[in-house]
Amino acid sequence: MSPSAAKRDLFRPAIAKMQGYAPGEWPALDAGVLKLNSNENAYPPSPEVLAALSGFNGELLRRYPDPQSTDFCQVVSKTLGIPTDWVIAGNGSDDILTLLVRACTEPGRTIAYPTPTYVLYRTLAAMQPAETIEIPYEIEGDYWQLPVEQLLQTDAAITFVASPNSPSGHIVPKSDLRALAAGLSGVLVIDEAYVDFSTENALDLVREFERVMVLRTLSKGYSLAGLRLGFGCAQPTLLAGLKKVKDSYNVDALALRLGAAAILDQDYKNACVEKIGAHREELATALREIGFWVGRSHTNFLLVKPPGDAKTIYQSLKAQKILIRYFDEPGLNDKLRITVGTPEQNQRLLNTIQPLIHN
Amino acid sequence: MSPSAAKRDLFRPAIAKMQGYAPGEWPALDAGVLKLNSNENAYPPSPEVLAALSGFNGELLRRYPDPQSTDFCQVVSKTLGIPTDWVIAGNGSDDILTLLVRACTEPGRTIAYPTPTYVLYRTLAAMQPAETIEIPYEIEGDYWQLPVEQLLQTDAAITFVASPNSPSGHIVPKSDLRALAAGLSGVLVIDEAYVDFSTENALDLVREFERVMVLRTLSKGYSLAGLRLGFGCAQPTLLAGLKKVKDSYNVDALALRLGAAAILDQDYKNACVEKIGAHREELATALREIGFWVGRSHTNFLLVKPPGDAKTIYQSLKAQKILIRYFDEPGLNDKLRITVGTPEQNQRLLNTIQPLIHN
Repeated sequence: MSPSAAKRDLFRPAIAKMQGYAPGEWPALDAGVLKLNSNENAYPPSPEVLAALSGFNGELLRRYPDPQSTDFCQVVSKTLGIPTDWVIAGNGSDDILTLLVRACTEPGRTIAYPTPTYVLYRTLAAMQPAETIEIPYEIEGDYWQLPVEQLLQTDAAITFVASPNSPSGHIVPKSDLRALAAGLSGVLVIDEAYVDFSTENALDLVREFERVMVLRTLSKGYSLAGLRLGFGCAQPTLLAGLKKVKDSYNVDALALRLGAAAILDQDYKNACVEKIGAHREELATALREIGFWVGRSHTNFLLVKPPGDAKTIYQSLKAQKILIRYFDEPGLNDKLRITVGTPEQNQRLLNTIQPLIHN
Repeated sequence: MSPSAAKRDLFRPAIAKMQGYAPGEWPALDAGVLKLNSNENAYPPSPEVLAALSGFNGELLRRYPDPQSTDFCQVVSKTLGIPTDWVIAGNGSDDILTLLVRACTEPGRTIAYPTPTYVLYRTLAAMQPAETIEIPYEIEGDYWQLPVEQLLQTDAAITFVASPNSPSGHIVPKSDLRALAAGLSGVLVIDEAYVDFSTENALDLVREFERVMVLRTLSKGYSLAGLRLGFGCAQPTLLAGLKKVKDSYNVDALALRLGAAAILDQDYKNACVEKIGAHREELATALREIGFWVGRSHTNFLLVKPPGDAKTIYQSLKAQKILIRYFDEPGLNDKLRITVGTPEQNQRLLNTIQPLIHN
C-alpha cells in the first residue's frame, strides 16, 4: 500500500458525499441490444455529415481546434437568425450546463427547477455545491403546469426549465417562460434539447431578456449523440462569464465540422423528425390499445404507465435485450420512458411487451 | 434592454474577478501562417488514424459514446502495462486537470506547483476558487532544480509538476518526483503532456503511490490536438472521485476510436518523435550560431533567449505570419518559446529571424 494512504481526505466534502450521475445503460454496438433508453434519434445522421467525415482534412486533427468555434457558431447564427457572438459551443449541451453552474452558483446561490426533469441539474448542483430548490410540476391528467409563481419566489441564481421536458415530453407555454424571464433576478436557462421534435421554441426570449439562455444539442434531432456537440444562445454579457470557465479547446475539430454539416442540412433533419413524430403516435396508439396510459409527447420518447408493475416490465425487457428507462423516484416509479424507434424496432418492443402485461 | 438587467450579480465573485486562460493565437487553416506557438506536432497523425476516420461506422455517431471509454482505456492499459481501471479518458488532458481541481480543491484546500509552468493550473485554481502556492524553480544556467522541500511544506491538496515542463523543456528527475510523492499528504499530478519526446517517464510512481496521477495527452506525440483526447493513470481510489465529477459522455466516439488507432501505432509515433528530436537539435544549433541562448529540451519546443528584445522579435515574426509564444511574465519576458517544425518550417523561421537580430 502507499505510504501516504492514511493522510488527508482526498476529495472535498461535497464530492466525497455525492453520487455521480447515472447515464442510461450502454451496451456494446454488437451486443444485439435494442437501445431505447437514452432518446437517441432512430435514424442515422445526415449523408452530408458522413460526407464531411470522409472528406475531413487530417491537418485539422494535427492542430488545436478553434477555441472560439467560429465557423460552427456562424452556421448556427445564420440558421437561427441571431448574431454570431450570441452563440457558445459546448462538448454536448451538458458541457454548457456545467459552465452555467460553475460560473453562476456556489453555496448561497441556489439552483431552482420544476420536477421531475433532467436529473443532471441536481447532480451538477451537488458537485458545485449549490443548494437546489425543486418545485413539483402541478400535474392534472396529461397537463403539466409550470409552477411559475413558486419558481419566481426562489430568487435562484439559475432556474432550469427543460422544454420539451424529460421524462414527461410536454412543452412549456412561451407565456409561462416569458413570465419567469421577466420576474427572475437570476439566469433562466431553457433547455431545448428536444426542441427539434416540437413545433415551438423560446428563442425569442433570448432577444428580449439579457439573462435568458436557450440551450440546444445535436444529440437528438440531428442524430449526433456520439459526437458531443451542443450550443447555447444568449446575449454576450452572459456568455462572457461562461467563456472564462470553459476549457480553451472544449469542442474538437471533427465535431465542429460535422456539426456544421448537420445544421446546414435542415431538410434531412426535418424529414427524420417528421417520420419519428408519426412513429411516436403509432406507438402511443398501440400501447394504449394494450392498456397503457401514454402521455402526450413533443419529443422522440413516450412516458407511459403500464398496466402492471413498471420495474418488473423494465427488468423483463432488459432480460430480452430491450433497454428502456425506469426511474426509481416518487411519481415516476410506476412509469417507464421509452425512446421512439423505427417501425421495426417499435414492433419488436410491442411484441415483447405484450406477453409481459398479460402474465 | 432587458427589464432584469439591473437585478443581481450574474456571476459568483471568483468568476467575476478572474481572467480567462488565453490560448495561443489561432489562425485559420488557409491564412498562410506558420503556427509555432502551441507545440503541435510537426507531422500529421498516423495513417492508421486516417484509415479509422474514413472507415468510421456512422452508427457510432447516432448513439451516445461509451461513458466509461472502455475500449480506449483497454488499449492504453495494454500499451502501458497497467490495469484498465487505472485509466480515465478526458476531453483533452485539460479536462482531467479540471476534474482534479473540482474534485479535490476548494477554498482552504490549496494547489501548489513550481513556476514557471503550464499557466492553466493557475487559471483552474482561480475559477474553483482555490488558493495557489507558486514556488519558483531554482535555475542555474540550464539546470532547473525542483524545489522539493518547499513543495512538501505546502501540504497542498494537489501538487502539479509538469515533466517535461513547459515552457522550459526540462525533465524532472524521478528521484525528486518520488520524494514528493512519498512526502505529500495530497495528490501529486505529474503532467506528462510532452513525455513522448522524452526518454524518461514517471509511470512507476502510479504503481508505488495511491495518490499519484500521471497525465498524458494525444495532442503532442500523437499529433491529435484537434481531436481533444487525453488520459490519466492512477489507482482506482483517486479515479473514483474524478468519475463523479466528469461529464457522463465526456469523450466522443470518434476521439475514442481514432485515439485508440493512434496509440496502437507506436512505430509511427516513435518515428515522428525521432525526427522531431533531430530537427530540434538542428534548430537549437542554428539559433545558437546566431547568438541565441537555447535551453536544453526534452520536448518538441525550445525556450530561447534572443540577442535582442524578445517581445519585438515576437511581434516582428507575427507581422511576417510566423507565430511563436511570448509570455509577458517576470523571468520569461526576455525569452521566447518556439515549437519545432519540419526542416522547411524551421528554415523559414531562421531566414525570417536572422535579419531581425542584426537590425
